[in-house]
Amino acid sequence: MRAGPSQEDIRRHNLGALLRHVHLGGPISRAELTSRMGLNRSTIMALTSDLTAAGLVREELPRETGRAGRPSLVVRPESARVYVFAFDVGPDRLAAARVGLGGLILDRREAVRERGAFELAELTAVLAGFARQMRRKAAADAVCVGAAAAVSGGVRKDDGVVRFGPNLKAEEVPFGEELARRLGLGLPVSVGNDANLGALAEHSRGVGAAVRDLVYLHGDVGIGGGIISGGHLIGGHEGYGGEVGHMVVNPGGRACGCGSHGCLEAEVGERALLESAGRYGGHQGRDSVRAVVEAADRGDIVAQEALKRVGDWLGLGVANLVNIFNPEMVIFGGMLRDIYLGAAAQVRSRLALHAMAPQRERLRLRTSSLGDAATLVGAAELAFANVLSDPLEVLARAHA
Amino acid sequence: MRAGPSQEDIRRHNLGALLRHVHLGGPISRAELTSRMGLNRSTIMALTSDLTAAGLVREELPRETGRAGRPSLVVRPESARVYVFAFDVGPDRLAAARVGLGGLILDRREAVRERGAFELAELTAVLAGFARQMRRKAAADAVCVGAAAAVSGGVRKDDGVVRFGPNLKAEEVPFGEELARRLGLGLPVSVGNDANLGALAEHSRGVGAAVRDLVYLHGDVGIGGGIISGGHLIGGHEGYGGEVGHMVVNPGGRACGCGSHGCLEAEVGERALLESAGRYGGHQGRDSVRAVVEAADRGDIVAQEALKRVGDWLGLGVANLVNIFNPEMVIFGGMLRDIYLGAAAQVRSRLALHAMAPQRERLRLRTSSLGDAATLVGAAELAFANVLSDPLEVLARAHA
Repeated sequence: MRAGPSQEDIRRHNLGALLRHVHLGGPISRAELTSRMGLNRSTIMALTSDLTAAGLVREELPRETGRAGRPSLVVRPESARVYVFAFDVGPDRLAAARVGLGGLILDRREAVRERGAFELAELTAVLAGFARQMRRKAAADAVCVGAAAAVSGGVRKDDGVVRFGPNLKAEEVPFGEELARRLGLGLPVSVGNDANLGALAEHSRGVGAAVRDLVYLHGDVGIGGGIISGGHLIGGHEGYGGEVGHMVVNPGGRACGCGSHGCLEAEVGERALLESAGRYGGHQGRDSVRAVVEAADRGDIVAQEALKRVGDWLGLGVANLVNIFNPEMVIFGGMLRDIYLGAAAQVRSRLALHAMAPQRERLRLRTSSLGDAATLVGAAELAFANVLSDPLEVLARAHA
Repeated sequence: MRAGPSQEDIRRHNLGALLRHVHLGGPISRAELTSRMGLNRSTIMALTSDLTAAGLVREELPRETGRAGRPSLVVRPESARVYVFAFDVGPDRLAAARVGLGGLILDRREAVRERGAFELAELTAVLAGFARQMRRKAAADAVCVGAAAAVSGGVRKDDGVVRFGPNLKAEEVPFGEELARRLGLGLPVSVGNDANLGALAEHSRGVGAAVRDLVYLHGDVGIGGGIISGGHLIGGHEGYGGEVGHMVVNPGGRACGCGSHGCLEAEVGERALLESAGRYGGHQGRDSVRAVVEAADRGDIVAQEALKRVGDWLGLGVANLVNIFNPEMVIFGGMLRDIYLGAAAQVRSRLALHAMAPQRERLRLRTSSLGDAATLVGAAELAFANVLSDPLEVLARAHA
């Protein structure tokens, strides 16, 4: 219940809002910005000049308007000059990307991670090495305005410490601080839960764009969740919100890495599928999950039964979340894309049994449109958050 | 991503913010408003004069300051002159209240409701009759600025239709429209789910004031939920958010009124407790629940076992919600106050088993501080929402 904003607050808000239009929607004419933002032409002109002078956008004549009269200038993000570093730490994979304003992935590196103890020094060294390589390839006048990482675990929002990550074997790891130190860019590294960031990515520029209430379910060994309610990510009191993988769906069921039993993750995760299919103990990872789905598709009865079992539990979990959140859309990401595509009938039949009619009648079930890049794209959006909320200040700092 | 607000928007925002301070916090000095709202003295003076002229607040000299110098005027809500009607429709009870600005319940009526078919005409006639009685007792210059109702069921946010309410036997009932017609005040009646409004009440002026992430669980025959995340109520895409009573906690468990099995409501609701205690079929309602808790307290083993069983399922449900939302506080309201107080040990032991450590280590479990008035108080807050967002306009309309 603070007072309304000052003139300076309003200008900062408008600069951020305009930059966000360009960042999320791509090149856009001044005329269109005038209409979408509800500001007059001279204000839009003043805002775009400020952003142009700061090197965040540039204005160009459109190629061909097909109309008479002077065409409206098109405002484009300076994708090659203004960028962030995004990182992704999963159980089996390390990834890093240099992402330009506007969301363009300019450069990208990946490494396989062996499942085993979480070696903070080694892991941050690999990621910082990737960043150095990518920085060398950037233009001389390009400027890094932020850095963020997606991690498969629960992250304390105040300081980016990974409090738990059973599938990374991480506990109480000061990951953000250490990665920032290794990067040596003079920038903090924001850290977020990978499923939360995947939700943010699908909401910003994926299948969930324009959807204000969505549940994103991310499978990668375990099951994570990111929930957008009324346009806001549910972070929780300390940042651990969205841990739907540890909702108990089957009391007395399979043991879970978290210490409990019958969690959604324990019944639907990689191990549950591979064990049910009689394939546990050999090859693990995304390919092994796909192999079960493909075998089921070819008529392998054991694989079909395994997929059916996992699909039933997945459907029960989704029904619970649909009752709790009344989302417009549920999005299946990571390995859950494969599982959902192989078990959609189970999921739908469980929804019919357990979700209330008003909650499910308009519900849309979708697979992630960003695919395995969702968590990395979400980390990039987290890294861009500061520059979008105060463009000139952040750019001035980055140049300093 | 619209543009920043106009001067007029800012004035309206500030008027609403000031009125909200007075409405929720009670009488407050101009000096304190200056400091809390971050506005200068002359702006606060101009805002309070506008609100005073409109008859929403009045300014008075404080009784005793104990300090030298001219004392700062105290701004008070005009509780007797500006009021709303709040209604509450539960399975066993109909309630109506006239609530003054500032949250004071000025007058109140209640009637017992027989469980059975939802008789829209009869029910709205009773409530409208209560409102007429209470209106007659109001001062001649008092003005009604809003009306809202809490209903034990799922309410479509667009039009206030009760889509489902198994415990009211209501389905597709245009409740808000009909009650507005019967009231004949020329005002619409906002309708909300009772547990959602209970959450709002505890968040506004109950045990959850100043708590931005909370789960409110409301027991009244069935189990409802209201969730506040980051200060916002989770309404969902169409308004059915928070139906945690229909989260399946025990697949293959007891049949639920919603058509599913093993829902939290089916395992923890009134019927589950009474059946487990061998008391189903006789007396029902809040007193019958209290009787089981009291019998357990006196050493009745059957009652103790029943309470233990129900407490285990309640604890499992709470653990799931704690993992999903990472709330700072869980509040037990309605008959769940009694059940929680009788089964706190079960709830805590289930939390220790199933909730992740970072989510539970700072969690506070509390009983509702507004008690049975929570849902009615929440309805009053919903009715005041318009006048708090645009005080002068709403008051001008009310006088017109």
